[in-house]
Formats: sequence, C-alpha cells, structure tokens
Amino acid sequence: MPSQYTVGVDEVTVDDAFWSPWIDRNRDVTVEYQYEQLEESGTLENFRRAIDGKSGGFQGMWFQDTDAYKWIEAASYELAKADDPDLRERVDEVIDLVARAQEESGYLDTYFQLVEPENRWTNLNIMHELYCAGHLIEAAVAHHEATGERSLLDVAVAFADHVDDIFGDEIDGVPGHEGIELALVRLYRVTDEERYLDLAAYFVDLRGHDDRLAWELDNSEEIGGASWDDGALVPAEGGGSLFLDDEGEYVGTYAQAQAPVREQEAVEGHSVRAMYLYAGVTDLVAERGDEELRAALDRLWTNMTEKRMYVTGGIGSAHEHEGFTDDYDLPNESAYAETCAAVGSVFWNQRLFELEPDPAYADLIERTLYNGFLAGVGMDGEAFFYVNPLASDGDHHRSGWFTCACCPPNAARLFASLGQYCYSTTGGELYVAQYVGGSLSTTVDGTSVELDQESDLPWDGEVAVDVDADGPVAVNFRIPEWATEATVAVDGEDVSHDGSGFVRVEREWDGERVELTFGMEPELVAAHPSVEADAGRVAVERGPLVYCAEAVDNERPLHQYAVDDDATVRAAGEADALDGVTVLEADATVPALDGWDGELYRPVGETEREESDLELVPYYAWDNRESGAMAVWHRRT
Amino acid sequence: MPSQYTVGVDEVTVDDAFWSPWIDRNRDVTVEYQYEQLEESGTLENFRRAIDGKSGGFQGMWFQDTDAYKWIEAASYELAKADDPDLRERVDEVIDLVARAQEESGYLDTYFQLVEPENRWTNLNIMHELYCAGHLIEAAVAHHEATGERSLLDVAVAFADHVDDIFGDEIDGVPGHEGIELALVRLYRVTDEERYLDLAAYFVDLRGHDDRLAWELDNSEEIGGASWDDGALVPAEGGGSLFLDDEGEYVGTYAQAQAPVREQEAVEGHSVRAMYLYAGVTDLVAERGDEELRAALDRLWTNMTEKRMYVTGGIGSAHEHEGFTDDYDLPNESAYAETCAAVGSVFWNQRLFELEPDPAYADLIERTLYNGFLAGVGMDGEAFFYVNPLASDGDHHRSGWFTCACCPPNAARLFASLGQYCYSTTGGELYVAQYVGGSLSTTVDGTSVELDQESDLPWDGEVAVDVDADGPVAVNFRIPEWATEATVAVDGEDVSHDGSGFVRVEREWDGERVELTFGMEPELVAAHPSVEADAGRVAVERGPLVYCAEAVDNERPLHQYAVDDDATVRAAGEADALDGVTVLEADATVPALDGWDGELYRPVGETEREESDLELVPYYAWDNRESGAMAVWHRRT
Repeated sequence: MPSQYTVGVDEVTVDDAFWSPWIDRNRDVTVEYQYEQLEESGTLENFRRAIDGKSGGFQGMWFQDTDAYKWIEAASYELAKADDPDLRERVDEVIDLVARAQEESGYLDTYFQLVEPENRWTNLNIMHELYCAGHLIEAAVAHHEATGERSLLDVAVAFADHVDDIFGDEIDGVPGHEGIELALVRLYRVTDEERYLDLAAYFVDLRGHDDRLAWELDNSEEIGGASWDDGALVPAEGGGSLFLDDEGEYVGTYAQAQAPVREQEAVEGHSVRAMYLYAGVTDLVAERGDEELRAALDRLWTNMTEKRMYVTGGIGSAHEHEGFTDDYDLPNESAYAETCAAVGSVFWNQRLFELEPDPAYADLIERTLYNGFLAGVGMDGEAFFYVNPLASDGDHHRSGWFTCACCPPNAARLFASLGQYCYSTTGGELYVAQYVGGSLSTTVDGTSVELDQESDLPWDGEVAVDVDADGPVAVNFRIPEWATEATVAVDGEDVSHDGSGFVRVEREWDGERVELTFGMEPELVAAHPSVEADAGRVAVERGPLVYCAEAVDNERPLHQYAVDDDATVRAAGEADALDGVTVLEADATVPALDGWDGELYRPVGETEREESDLELVPYYAWDNRESGAMAVWHRRT
Repeated sequence: MPSQYTVGVDEVTVDDAFWSPWIDRNRDVTVEYQYEQLEESGTLENFRRAIDGKSGGFQGMWFQDTDAYKWIEAASYELAKADDPDLRERVDEVIDLVARAQEESGYLDTYFQLVEPENRWTNLNIMHELYCAGHLIEAAVAHHEATGERSLLDVAVAFADHVDDIFGDEIDGVPGHEGIELALVRLYRVTDEERYLDLAAYFVDLRGHDDRLAWELDNSEEIGGASWDDGALVPAEGGGSLFLDDEGEYVGTYAQAQAPVREQEAVEGHSVRAMYLYAGVTDLVAERGDEELRAALDRLWTNMTEKRMYVTGGIGSAHEHEGFTDDYDLPNESAYAETCAAVGSVFWNQRLFELEPDPAYADLIERTLYNGFLAGVGMDGEAFFYVNPLASDGDHHRSGWFTCACCPPNAARLFASLGQYCYSTTGGELYVAQYVGGSLSTTVDGTSVELDQESDLPWDGEVAVDVDADGPVAVNFRIPEWATEATVAVDGEDVSHDGSGFVRVEREWDGERVELTFGMEPELVAAHPSVEADAGRVAVERGPLVYCAEAVDNERPLHQYAVDDDATVRAAGEADALDGVTVLEADATVPALDGWDGELYRPVGETEREESDLELVPYYAWDNRESGAMAVWHRRT
C-alpha cells in the first residue's frame, strides 16, 4: 500500500475538463513560483548557512524550512505522475542542501542551528521543530515513492530516529503544531519500522495530559524563541497568548490539548492543527485499531460536520486563533475558513474513508474540494486566499504569496496529488469516490484493474466509467448527496439503487461501460436554526457547487435581494468570463424605491417589493473579476 | 427672552407620571453623585491647587474643569425651578473655587495652569481650552438666570473677554471640540454685549478654512499636551490620529472642519461636536439671519435625518471617531449612538424649532428623548450608557460613571431643564411641542399665559391642556408623527385638522380645556432600502416609543424570530418589572426544530416554521433586568 492512501499518486492520471486546467496551472505556475520563492525568501540560504556552520542571519519565519519540504513534496507528486528531468534535477539540488545541513545527530532545523542552538527542543509550543520534522518526513516519503531514491528518506529517517531518541526519554512533550503524527505513519509504511508508529502513538496519547506546554508558558525565560521577534513566546502579542484564556491561564484548546484525544468531544482551536492531528490519529487507528480513539474520531467528525462547518466545507470561524469557536457560530463576513484547513479536512476525510468507506466522507471531500478549498486559489494560479469568508463587502482579495506561505504550498501538494482522492481500494473493493475524468491503473486485492473515467462535473451530471479487470471485482460508484435524481447503468442496463450512497457492482469486467447520470437541479438550502449568521437566509447549490452572488453581476446592492423558499433557480448558460462557468439566475425581489424620497424609516405596510433576478456564480470563482461585494447566504422573503 | 430658548426653565413645572420619576431620580441621585465626584475625581482639588499657585498634581482628564461647570449648570436648573438652600450653598462654594482660580488676565484652565502654563492656546485641536470655556459660560449663564447672581457670570465674562482679546488677534484658530459658539450666544443674550456674538461668528466662520489644526499636527513638538499621556497629540494612539486620513494626512472631518460650515453638505465626524456646532450656528442665524448658513443647516439636518440617524434618534455609527460615517451606514450591534450626541441633537433641534416651528423638529426631539437619549440612563439613575447599540449579544451594560464623564452630566442638565423643550413662544404664538404633564407660566408677545397639561404619554394618547390668558393668543398643538389617528377638541368641540403637524387654535382663553387623543396602534417600520443593516427587518413602534426584544422575555434566541409585514402587534399590559411599562406582543414565527437532528444544512423546502409570539419592551428600558441579547430590528418573514 502507498504511504498515504490505498491508491497512489502514480496510479491515477487526471484528464478532466474541469480539474486538469487547475492541475496544469498548479504545476506550471504555482510549483514553479514556489521554487523561485525558496531562493527569494532565503529558505535555501538558511540551509547553506547551516552547512557552512555559520551563525545568525536566519531569514523568514522560524519554520521557514518547511517551505523547502512542501515544495519537494509537491514536486515529487509531479515526478510520480510523469518524469521531468529538469524538475528532478532541481529537487535533487534542494535535497542535497537539506541533507548537508543535517547535523551528525540527525537534528535538522536551520532556525535553531543558526540562531539559538542551545535552545533546541525547549519551546515545543511555538517553535515548531516537530512540525518541521513532519513536513520533512512527508516530503521524503513522497520523494522516495516517486523516484525510488533514498536521498531525502535517509535524512528523514535520521531525524525521526533522533526525535525518537529524545522524546519519551529526555523530554516528554508534544508539538504545539501537529503534523508529525501522520508523517510518522507514512514513514512507518515505507520503512516498516514499528518504532515510528510507536512514536506517532506517543505524540497522540500524550497530548492533553502532559503539562509541558503549560510549563513552557510559565518559564518563558528558559525556552527558545524569545529572541526572535516573530516567534517570541513571551510577549502577550506573540503566539503564546493564544494558549491563554481570558484570565491569562493556560488552556490547551488552541492546540487540541484541552483533553486527551480519546476524551475529546468537540473540534477546538486552530483548525489546520486539528485536521492534521485527526488525520494522524485516523492513520494510527487504521494501523493498530483502537476503539476508543475511533469513537473519539466519530464524535469529533460529528461535532465538526453538524455544528462547526460552513456550507462550503470550510472550517474555522475566528481569525484570532485561526480556528473553531462554539457550536453553530458560523459568521460569514468574518469567517476564517483557512484554505489550509480545507486541505487538512480533505486529508482527514480521505483517511476516514479508507478506514470505513462511508459515502459521507467522500461527499464532504467533494464539497470541500469544489468550494472551501478551490476558492482559496485564484483562477490564474498566481493568487491565493488564506482566509475564505462567505460574504464580503468587496475588500477581501487574493494575494500573491504570504510571509507565512502555508496555503499556496498546501494547495500545490493537494492539486499535484489529486488523483489519490478519486479512488480507494479499501477492504478489497474498488470505490469510485470522486467523479474526475482520467484513468486508474491499480490492483484490488491482487486483481489488476484498469479504469477510464469521463465526467462532465461540475456542470452536468453525466459520467461514464469503463472498467477492465483480470478477475471479478466489486466496484462501488458513489451517488453524490446532491444528486436530485440518479441513474446507474452497466452496459446499458439500469442498476437498481436506493438513490444514495454507493451502488455496488460486483462482476467480471471486460471494458464494460458504467453510465451514471446525476440530476443537478439547483437547490436552496437553509442552515440549522441555531446558526444566527444564516437565520432567514438561503444558500444556492447546484451539483457539487455552492454558488454566490457578486456585485459585478447584480444591479442592486446584494443586501437588497431576497429569494422565496420556492423560488425558481435557472442554470443560465456559461459565463463570458470565469472560464465559462455555468451561471445561475434566481427569481428574487428587491425593495421598490418609490416613496422613499426624503424618508429614512417608513411604515412597512407602505413599502413594496418588485421582481428581479439574482445572478449567481460558483463560490470558488468569486473575486476573479471586478472587485465588489459577495454573498453566499441570501435573504429569504 | 431666556438665554437658550423662548421659554425658560423657571417658567415650566413638570408634573408627569412618566417623566417626573426620571427628573426626581436625576436630582436626587445623579446630580448628588455628580457633586460627590467633583471631590472624588480631584476636580475641585485642581481648582484649589491653581488658587494656591501650585504646579503639577493635576488630576483627571485634561478637560476635567468641565465636570464642575456641568454640575453647576445642572444644579442651577434645579435652583431655577425651586430654591434649595443646601444646593445653593454648595454651588456657591464651587463657584468660589472657580472664581479664585481664575488668573488676572481672565484665563482659566487648571490643566494648563498646573501642568504646562507656557503652552496655553497652542493646541486648540485636542486640549479643549475653548471647550472648557464654553461649559464655563453655559454654567455661568444658567446660574445667573436661576439666581440673579453674577458670581460666576463675572468669571465667564472675564474669560470670554480674554478669549476675545486673543483670538482673531494673537491667534487665529477654532476649537477641536465645539461648544463655545452656542455658549457665547447665550452670554450675549444675558449681557447684550455684541462682541460675544461677533466672537461666536468668528469661530463659526473660520472653521473649515484655516490651517491652524493642520499646523498643530505638523508641529506637535511646539504645542501643549505632548507631556500628558491621556491628552498627548503626538502619539498615533492619541486623539491626534483621529484627524488623519488613512494616508496620515490631515482631514478636518473629525471636527467638522472638512469645509467651511456654510459649504458643508453632510454631517461628519464626532457627532457630539457636530451637534454643539450646529446648535451654535442655529443660534447665530437666529440672531443675525444668514441665508447661506441657514441653507447649510437645512442641508445638514436633511442629511442627518434622511441618511445618518438611527430609528431611535441616535446618531453616530462608528466607535472609532465617535461619529458619523457614510450615508445609510447604520450598523446596529456596533452602533455608537452616544448618549451625549442624542442630548446634542435635542439642543440643536430645539434651536431649529425656535427658528422655524416646523413640527418635524419637535417630532425628532420627542423620538430622541424617549428612545436614543433615555436608553442612556438606567432606571435606577445610577448607571449610564455612553454607547447605545440597537442590538446586543448581551455583553453591553451600563456603567456607574466614566473616566470621561460626559454622558451622565449631559443627561443631568437635560433632565433638569426638560421643561424648556415642551413649549415655545416663537413668532408670537404658543407651541405645545411636547406632551409632558405640568404647567407653564409665560408671556406670549406681551400676553400672560397660564397653562396646565395632563398627559398619559407614552402609554396612552390622552392629553388635556387647560389654557388661561389675559388676551387672545394662538396656541398650536402638535399632532405627533406617530399618531395613527388624532382628535383635538376645545371645550368639547372638535377642531378640524388634516391629521398632522400643528393644530392652531387662536382665541381668548379662559380656562378652556383642550382635549387631544392620539391613536397609538403599534406600527412596524422598515428602513430605507440602502440601509444594509436593516435589510429585511422591521422595528416596532408604539406612540413615541421604539420597542425592542430582550432575551429575558423570549424563549428562543432572538435571531430565530421572524415577523410578517402585516403581523398583529398587541399591547399586552404592564410589565411586572421596569416600572410597569406597557409590553407588546407580536405574532411571529420561529423555525421548527424537527428534522434537524444531525443536520447542519438542509434543503429549505424540507424546513418548517411554527407560530410564536415575540415579546417586546420599550427600547429605553433594556438592560435593566437579567442580561441577555437585545434587538430593535426583527427579521421579516
């Protein structure tokens, strides 16, 4: 099995009218730009200075090393899909710098090596050495899987062994920013070394009942980071204050340490960290089984999806700590909904799906990919949202690159490896989980399977899948939650189904074509009555896409439109701009302006409304034209 | 004519079931507490130190002297209505300190006298010497009118003469915080010295086209205030930054200096300052006539009332500069709507009414008094809102006193002088502008008039007015804008009228009773379509009162209620608490909770609403019981 999921990046080719342009732009624009930034930002120079044994002169964020690792990971996925000598050469050059910067002991973190070597492993809370280790390991595994080479894997193994030596022995503690847990499971899967699994389990189990993070806050003068403006733990303005409650007391919530993972009831704190943690925990459960941890994951997933998630699949309501707040607290304009958190949610949900192929996980991945994630990336591949609000007054725009460049590289590694999320061979059956055109070549429980998929999503619900196998295989086709009707036919013969979940077709396959048709009537959805931000509002969905209104398409200010619960919403053709997205048009009303001359308030009985249309475009496509207000949730009349 | 309006404080006795308890609490609780604070806060000690020629040791805000002046003004209104030897004695004691602290030159400002005597008149922008002078003059005139004594008037005259010597001669400049303009007109009216009117005109005319304020910002090292933490002009955190635009350039908007007053188009900046300025300008126009200024006032009033005013009469949308923002920008939860600004609006509108008895001014005074102003004062007379939002999540509460104690004393002087606002004798006719029980004894164009009023407002629309006069007098009775029907009868005989404005009854009066009945059907009002914050929302009014919903009275969270445009709203008796206010009950719906188990988003067609009642209390009475959410604007279904 590949290190991450049951299907490897190299087993899938994406050839899809919708997704391929994104993936191509990612490869041609984003990954290239990401590489240039390694030099531009001083990331590579940090490694060079460490190689030369220099002191000081560190550039960038204190976890800047991860920029190199994330680029290697994304580039490796590209190499896994198709060799590219130029790219391979550049990857090797960067790996060479990384490898040479590693200390004899296996330690590798250029910030501490250059700035405060005496303080390594003292500030687990903020200083992110273990987070860097996680990204190093992920990059190394991806590179090894793509190329078969061990150049970076050896570095990762040495660092992981060093971490294994230190933790649980010299130090007991867990990272303030998770990520190493899932990375260690990947490392275990390519090395078969049980100790990496043990180490992942150690970090998962210790979280929430050690007092290391609290101790660091109380002993800020003894720990690393204080001399580094951006990363200083001491000042109340620094990250450390995020670990404190209103009374200045330590609470672990920010880093999911409010309770041991197996006792946690709700998704809390920084949402990217939460997703990385729970992805790692899911990996652990997959490897070792642990009913208690599994039950905790169920509770956490249920809490997230039933009480703390935007309709776009986005997560994280508050800017302050980039994370979750309270049940049903889902403000639209001030939403955080970080692009990286959407990526993390896809990571977690795919792992959950591999553990138990519940279509709900695949439905959520689809919702997140097309909406909460995709909005994070501009249609030119050059600009990104860190934050993805569901309403805007027109002042929120994508930026080229961030000082803390986490979202663009995370988007890069997801685009580059998107094929993995389309299929699964969990439990010895094949799952067609996402309808993305292309091909799959894999083995299912020893049986070779070749599959070709054509998909008209997200604009039309027509999908055709041709399957070939050298033995009988059960293939499961997902009926998306959004399908307003669904037909499934194998070789022209309808397959009966109950309209939801997976349709299982077990048989010999010899190029049979499976044709799936999913109804895509636009639908108005409401949010739970406890969601104050969406009270009296509706969102419009069509197929997997959440739609939004933008000022540029609508004559009146957006707040003036209101939509009936039973309003007709029409697919109104392709937009001239926005790569020809299907636009929607909803019957709406706006206030009549008669009688308002000289009046600010009037008896409501004297006011009237008049008919209008509300024009809608896919949420992911917003802020790609003239800037202006945007809203996902529209008033109901 | 009295110094402020055509009817003096001493000519009216308020004896009203609604207002008298407020006025009594104001006299017994607020004014007493305000006096204690003069010692507590160091205000009197500042005067004593100045008398003793000491240096330093100044306590409180740099304009702390005004606390003494405002107390004297409020106390003087009490003395005007009824002698109170104890109060008179304490007023005399405070006046004695003020008088002895005055310098030979007439200069009086204990901050500058104690802290930086060399820097007087250098920082007109922030340091408020002219603002202090304004309050001194107002107090002195009120005291003189109440007692006939000149003890404080002489001080005010000496300071005004000093200001007159300095300004326009040694210095050209206008105050950053207005107030002296209207005060100088009051001083003119009791002294008949034309130079005070000239000085008021000077300040009004210079505003907006001198560069003094800009010069101060550019020369912060040469001006006063920099050494005083709270008042420092230099730091960006200080008040000075409020005069800068986003690019750091000086803009006069904050202090209504964006353009000469006669060219101004919209109410801008700090709303209390704006009201004080426009009140002073109105006084000037009344004295001298000035068509251009008059036209400017009309434009400004129209802009405010048609585009920049809350339904409560509150003004000022933004906390940052305590003031006006853009047309139709009227956020509810983050409203500023300072209590002092409501008081200032009453000051301005009463002056406009005296200039031209348009019922719209009296209507707005009534709306402001019962809503935007009254909410600022707790029903115990001991706690105050500085800020009056129209929606709250339950975290906004009245406080006992403020470091910057501007609102409580402003409320105090308004309550203490409320009678002045009920009547006017402008243009030689009598206007019954506000329906507040009590009596009036005045002369109208030489004719003595005695009037007794009984009023059931705001709970019922029954009013009876008995009039006696020693000659024929035209008496005008206002039909309030909110009256859903109205009858006016003199001695039992109906008077015909067109249902709005003033009903004019010119005749001999010999104790005739005028009975007025105003319909008080609850009414749902909507805001102009351009007001985003109120889109799809209604407010409920009954008579002069705006109502609100409080969490304590309603089972569901407030955001779940929705009201039909034609919903029935019932007066539902008197509340057990809140001094027996009339509560309202509106037909409403709330979302059915069925079907939401485990769902965060659902097709709107599957959701249902069920009937409920929304309970409402007068807005002014909110936050006087168990704390919780509050909303003035309710969703429409």
